[in-house]
Amino acid sequence: VMHVKWDAVAAEKGGYEHFMLKEIHEQPRALRDTMLGRLEEEKVVLQEVDLTSDELAQIHKVYIVACGTAWHAGLVGKTLIERWAHLPVEVDIASEFRYRSPLIDEHTLVVVVSQSGETADTLAALREAKNRGARVIAITNVVGSTVSREAHDVIFTWAGPEIAVASTKAYTTQLEGMVLLGLYLAQVKGTLPANKIGEIIQGLKNIPAQVQEILDQESSIRELAKSFVGVEDAFFLGRSLDWAVAMEGALKMKEISYIHAEAYAAGELKHGTLALVTEQTPVLALATQREVFDKTVSNIKEVKARDAKVFGMTYKGNTSLAKAVDQVIYIPETRDELAPILTVIPLQLLAYYVSVARGCDVDKPRNLAKSVTVE
Amino acid sequence: VMHVKWDAVAAEKGGYEHFMLKEIHEQPRALRDTMLGRLEEEKVVLQEVDLTSDELAQIHKVYIVACGTAWHAGLVGKTLIERWAHLPVEVDIASEFRYRSPLIDEHTLVVVVSQSGETADTLAALREAKNRGARVIAITNVVGSTVSREAHDVIFTWAGPEIAVASTKAYTTQLEGMVLLGLYLAQVKGTLPANKIGEIIQGLKNIPAQVQEILDQESSIRELAKSFVGVEDAFFLGRSLDWAVAMEGALKMKEISYIHAEAYAAGELKHGTLALVTEQTPVLALATQREVFDKTVSNIKEVKARDAKVFGMTYKGNTSLAKAVDQVIYIPETRDELAPILTVIPLQLLAYYVSVARGCDVDKPRNLAKSVTVE
Repeated sequence: VMHVKWDAVAAEKGGYEHFMLKEIHEQPRALRDTMLGRLEEEKVVLQEVDLTSDELAQIHKVYIVACGTAWHAGLVGKTLIERWAHLPVEVDIASEFRYRSPLIDEHTLVVVVSQSGETADTLAALREAKNRGARVIAITNVVGSTVSREAHDVIFTWAGPEIAVASTKAYTTQLEGMVLLGLYLAQVKGTLPANKIGEIIQGLKNIPAQVQEILDQESSIRELAKSFVGVEDAFFLGRSLDWAVAMEGALKMKEISYIHAEAYAAGELKHGTLALVTEQTPVLALATQREVFDKTVSNIKEVKARDAKVFGMTYKGNTSLAKAVDQVIYIPETRDELAPILTVIPLQLLAYYVSVARGCDVDKPRNLAKSVTVE
Repeated sequence: VMHVKWDAVAAEKGGYEHFMLKEIHEQPRALRDTMLGRLEEEKVVLQEVDLTSDELAQIHKVYIVACGTAWHAGLVGKTLIERWAHLPVEVDIASEFRYRSPLIDEHTLVVVVSQSGETADTLAALREAKNRGARVIAITNVVGSTVSREAHDVIFTWAGPEIAVASTKAYTTQLEGMVLLGLYLAQVKGTLPANKIGEIIQGLKNIPAQVQEILDQESSIRELAKSFVGVEDAFFLGRSLDWAVAMEGALKMKEISYIHAEAYAAGELKHGTLALVTEQTPVLALATQREVFDKTVSNIKEVKARDAKVFGMTYKGNTSLAKAVDQVIYIPETRDELAPILTVIPLQLLAYYVSVARGCDVDKPRNLAKSVTVE
């Protein structure tokens, strides 16, 4: 009898060294699956969400409640919903929301975001919101999860099982869920003309291929990771939506490489934290948002003046950022509202390659659990 | 002719080694001056603010806009105004607010906070808010400053000139300004009964002496500072109002000691950043807010389990926190809403003594300016 030795876990990694890298590479597929059947030419179709325009007219405020990476997706959602549907949005950390006595009633729409659908604080927030009469929409990755069962409406992300503790494909599909929800609310409220919705939908349809384009240049990020391997601190900067993604990029770096990365609104750094910036602290500056591009470059110059090594990120075709930073990561051009789904990909790869180079346990970082079912 | 050598700067320091220490010690006086003439037994009197109950009935939302330390004061203000006046409050960083296309109109009250009254981003936010028809109240320390002249209403803090770059007495008087504003709005709206307002006023009147009580135990903080001198990272934790003060404590530490201190909502740490916690990262956990005390202690146990050295802070008379942490800093007992004005004092002293021990330039940290008049 011949025994074939094989490792079930390795088999599931599909040839990748770690689940995280596999999941990073699954994002084009996950993003495609999540939009499947939900996009018409100028219309979003969300079968599991049923808000009539009469019901939506009664909604005066939106709360997005989540933890960790899902909270970062919520920060992007805030801007999209405010900009497209003209509804005021507050984003809250679930463990804070519960004890804040938030001003919630039947005129409030609460959006809870949780990959597992079992996050204890998020679930408790959902129940609290329902008790106060709010309408609750869940964005979750797990069919049959408690959050999906208890919410009034659900937008499932179709990322598939996520094994690595550091979330990647769940995050980008949550961002996509926020785009879908923002468009849906705008559509029902009539705050965006159909042709504008159509333009955004077209942009969204291009995203999976653009993510693939970034993944195909993985080796350049692996090269760039060398500048982070030996450091203990790093800063991630951006304004507006770039700031939200900077937070997610810093969290990935923290989680798996144990580098003390911290994100800052680019305009806020000079109000204190600039004191920490030296030639030993690499800075990653996102500069995709066109409206604040010049202001972001001004802030980049402030950190360059302190001899920090600065890596910038912007759209292909932008020629001015290269003059202000040491090196530029270029992403394919898209609408500013959709940029977060692209800008986070190099940051995921960066955290991954830094973690590998530092010899950390990528898929199971110390102290962390995949789904936090305690408070 | 005899020449007496003297140093004008040293003279102004009034015997203290640094302006920062002098200003920390001026806080009982600054807090007293800021409440002077503004407190009746059960009523707040703000002469420079004139909002009628009819006008306030038209206000549906409050935005607090500021930068740096003043933004941290705004985070406390949010909770106070929501809790007391039942008005939804959004706190925004001024450099972000300007480009967010915030949903602001004549039904919005915008509160801008700036020590100098010249902070460029805050001033621009004020003008933007006025253009959109909002009513603007300023909380500022400088009479005749641009912010004070351009706002519709002003609450002056009477901290006196602040020389050290790291703000101390300006912050605590801004907190006091938030207490006064929160009570004022509740009073005009009728959302707090007079006797409850009277109780809070009594608590506020006790604060200056309680701050002095903490200052009198300065030597214990100087001793505690030794645990931070040799580290490169530290975490400041808390829930609710304790979280807001944790942010300010971490910022002080960053600004003047160049330790990479970061604040976290205590319940959020396990969603990623717990990976950074080791026996090399001291943790300062604020645990004054009674409603979330038990939850905070649970989170403290999570970091203790990773061998971090944990310093807790709570009210005198609390006997349970001592069992969960390595050492407790006790502050005099007060109402939870007023605790921030007390809890920040040991954090200011801690940052100061760590900075001195590390040989940093306390009053003029590298890279920073006192008042940021550029964007």
